This record gives sequence, C-alpha cells and structure tokens, in this order.
Amino acid sequence: MSNSIPEIADEESKVQAPSLRTTIKRIPKNANNEQEFLHAIIDEAYVCHVAFTDEHGSHCIPTACWREHNHLYIHGANASRMMKQLVKGTQACITITHVDGLVLARSAFNHSMNYRSAMIYGVFEVVGAEQKAESMAAFMEKIAPGRQAEIRAGSYAELAGTTILRMPLVEFMCKTRSGGPNDDEEDMQQAAWAGVLPIRVAHDAPIAHEQNTQAAPAYVSAWND
Amino acid sequence: MSNSIPEIADEESKVQAPSLRTTIKRIPKNANNEQEFLHAIIDEAYVCHVAFTDEHGSHCIPTACWREHNHLYIHGANASRMMKQLVKGTQACITITHVDGLVLARSAFNHSMNYRSAMIYGVFEVVGAEQKAESMAAFMEKIAPGRQAEIRAGSYAELAGTTILRMPLVEFMCKTRSGGPNDDEEDMQQAAWAGVLPIRVAHDAPIAHEQNTQAAPAYVSAWND
Repeated sequence: MSNSIPEIADEESKVQAPSLRTTIKRIPKNANNEQEFLHAIIDEAYVCHVAFTDEHGSHCIPTACWREHNHLYIHGANASRMMKQLVKGTQACITITHVDGLVLARSAFNHSMNYRSAMIYGVFEVVGAEQKAESMAAFMEKIAPGRQAEIRAGSYAELAGTTILRMPLVEFMCKTRSGGPNDDEEDMQQAAWAGVLPIRVAHDAPIAHEQNTQAAPAYVSAWND
Repeated sequence: MSNSIPEIADEESKVQAPSLRTTIKRIPKNANNEQEFLHAIIDEAYVCHVAFTDEHGSHCIPTACWREHNHLYIHGANASRMMKQLVKGTQACITITHVDGLVLARSAFNHSMNYRSAMIYGVFEVVGAEQKAESMAAFMEKIAPGRQAEIRAGSYAELAGTTILRMPLVEFMCKTRSGGPNDDEEDMQQAAWAGVLPIRVAHDAPIAHEQNTQAAPAYVSAWND
C-alpha cells in the first residue's frame, strides 16, 4: 500500500541539482541524462500543476505548459489570480505526472503504479513584451507543428493582456517506476493474477469544426495514431 | 492564448459551496449535479496533485486517490514528508485534471483545451486504525473490482506503517470545457484548419508477470478496451 503511490518516499528517484527539497532519495546518474529525462517529461505534457501560496492558503492550479531550452513556460490572463501572485516572485512548485500503468502484485501492500513525474521548484521570471510573440509561437509549435504560419497571430492587445512566465529548470527532481510487480518471496504462491495494466494517452480521430473549409494539415491527419 | 489554459479565470466554472477560494466565476447549477460531476472526476482519476506548504515552501505532490461517499482519500508511508505534514492539519488543495482535447481555433488567442478539473480545499482527517483495512479495500475495489478477495491482505505491520488521510468534499470547484473552437467573427475566413484533436486515456493489453500462474480475472481480461 505504501508502495502503491507515486510519492516522494518510494521508488527510484532521479535527482539533479539537489537541494533541501530535492534530496529525499538520491541515486546518482549522468547529469546530461537527467536533464534529457526531465525535458522529455515536460515535452510530453500538455498540462502541469502549479502549487503556490497566497493570503488564502495553498493552491494547486492546472495550466498548459511548454519548454524552451532549459525553462518551463506557462501563460495566462494578466487578471488571473495565479498570474497576479506569481509575477510577484512567489515561490512555486510545478509538477507533471504521467501515469503509465497499474502494477498488480500478489499482496495488497506491493501494489504500485508505473509513472514518470517531475517536480520543479523555484520562482517564475516574467517574459518581457518583446519576447512574448516568439514564446507563444514556440507553444504553438509544440501543440501543432507548422500551425503558427496558418493562423491569425496574436494582436498587440491580445499579447498585452497575456502574462507569460518561465521557470528555470535548476532545482528539480524526476521520479519513475516501470516494470512488473515486486512481490515478497512468501507471497509468490498467492493465487492472484500478477502483472501490469498499461495506461497511455491516446489520440482519437480529429473533429473538424462545422464551418471548417480547410484540408487537414499533417499535424491533424497524423493525430489519430 | 489566454483561452488556451485550463486555468481559474476562464471557461465554464461549476462551483459548489462557494468560499473566498472557490467563487471566482460562478454559474449556478443544480447542487446534486455538481456533486455527481465532482465524484465522476475523482472516480476516473488514478492520481491527484496535492499542494501544501511547510517550512521549505509550497509543494505539489502527485499521489494515488480514491473516493468513499463524500471524501477523497490518499495514503502513504508514515515516514513520508507529505504525510507527516498533512497529519498536522495543514491546509491543502487537491487538484485533478483530465485533458480531453486540444481546441484549434483560427486565431492563436482562441486556441484552448477541452478538460474537466476539480480543485478541493480543506484539511485532511486521519483515518483511524480500525478503519484502515476497509479503506484500503475500497481503494483496491476502484483499481480492480473483486481483487481484494484474491490477494494477500495487508498485515498488521503494513497497515500500521501506512497513513490514510481523507478530505471532505465540501469546499471545491469543478471546471470543464468541451466542444469546438469559438472564433471571433472576423477570423472566420482565416485559412487554418479548425476543430478539436481529442485526447483520452487508453488501456493497452495487460502484461502478465513472468511467474504469473493465474488465469486473467474479469478486470484484467476487460482492461484492453
């Protein structure tokens, strides 16, 4: 049971730039590989969860994310509660979790999940006005490669009303579990099916808008894998 | 662009039990329906993200979750950082997000995501020793219906080493977006494909452990839909 959660105290940890907050269980690895592992987790995610605290308490807010080089980016309306708090330099923790499967062991206690997760600590930097259009284009390139050239780009007013923030990928911890169940020897005769129930994110067939007039571009026709 | 994030300041909000933290944008709905909507979001989730604050700052930790009646449950090793902090009655925010699709509009600004999310605020209650076995069985029933009778149940020591916490579903906010893009009239002639790229969680074929000796029970043979 304590094995069954993707939580800080168990499973393999991949840690870089250890700090008080990220040295729970360190397994030394090649630093470049660590960075690549983190980048892959971010690049696969459409949404991250951002924890921060204001005068009303701790909040956990889901928001879209993307990566440029060694920063994670988020954006939102200038007026949003989260943006107004984070531009002040409030400490935040960003977490991304990909669930890869349920691990069914022969004892309740040894049940687990396969997953990849990343926690990033730090303070967001505000992306300056002159960089906003380029950053939003990078986000679009992640969502739909090549689409930026097809759409009506953000206007001055739209960009001015949008806050873009980025967090340096410096203080972080990635964790992962993969593979089958790890049962205790004395449980191996238990008459229970043992193995993994794999989970993945799937893409269903694109749904064109009723007034769509355009042929499907590559990122649409290739969507439904 | 500001439309493209599942974030507090946009899209349809479904709010119950409004508080300072959950009255951002209220659309009155039937209270029973609200409860059912929240329950469905939790019941579909294997993992939630928990935000809380300790002397090292704000944290956002992914952990398995399940529901019994009108409480959300989590568990972990007694020794885990999160459990040790939350048993103190620390205020927490639990968030669950299901991403349902990418919404491709004719302007960058009107891009969005389809999603269902729930934020729950409050303080965790500790599940007493006499209730632990029953709560863990409820979790197993969510993961794999009927499996509790097949496995070796938790021992006294395993249960004693596990902390189970529950949060009442009282102060919460659910949000959802569905459907196609909402373009501005002046963008309708833009020569860009418009529509939705649907996303869902899929189940791949079960992988039996190499030493598995048991036939697949119903929850295994029905997994790969």
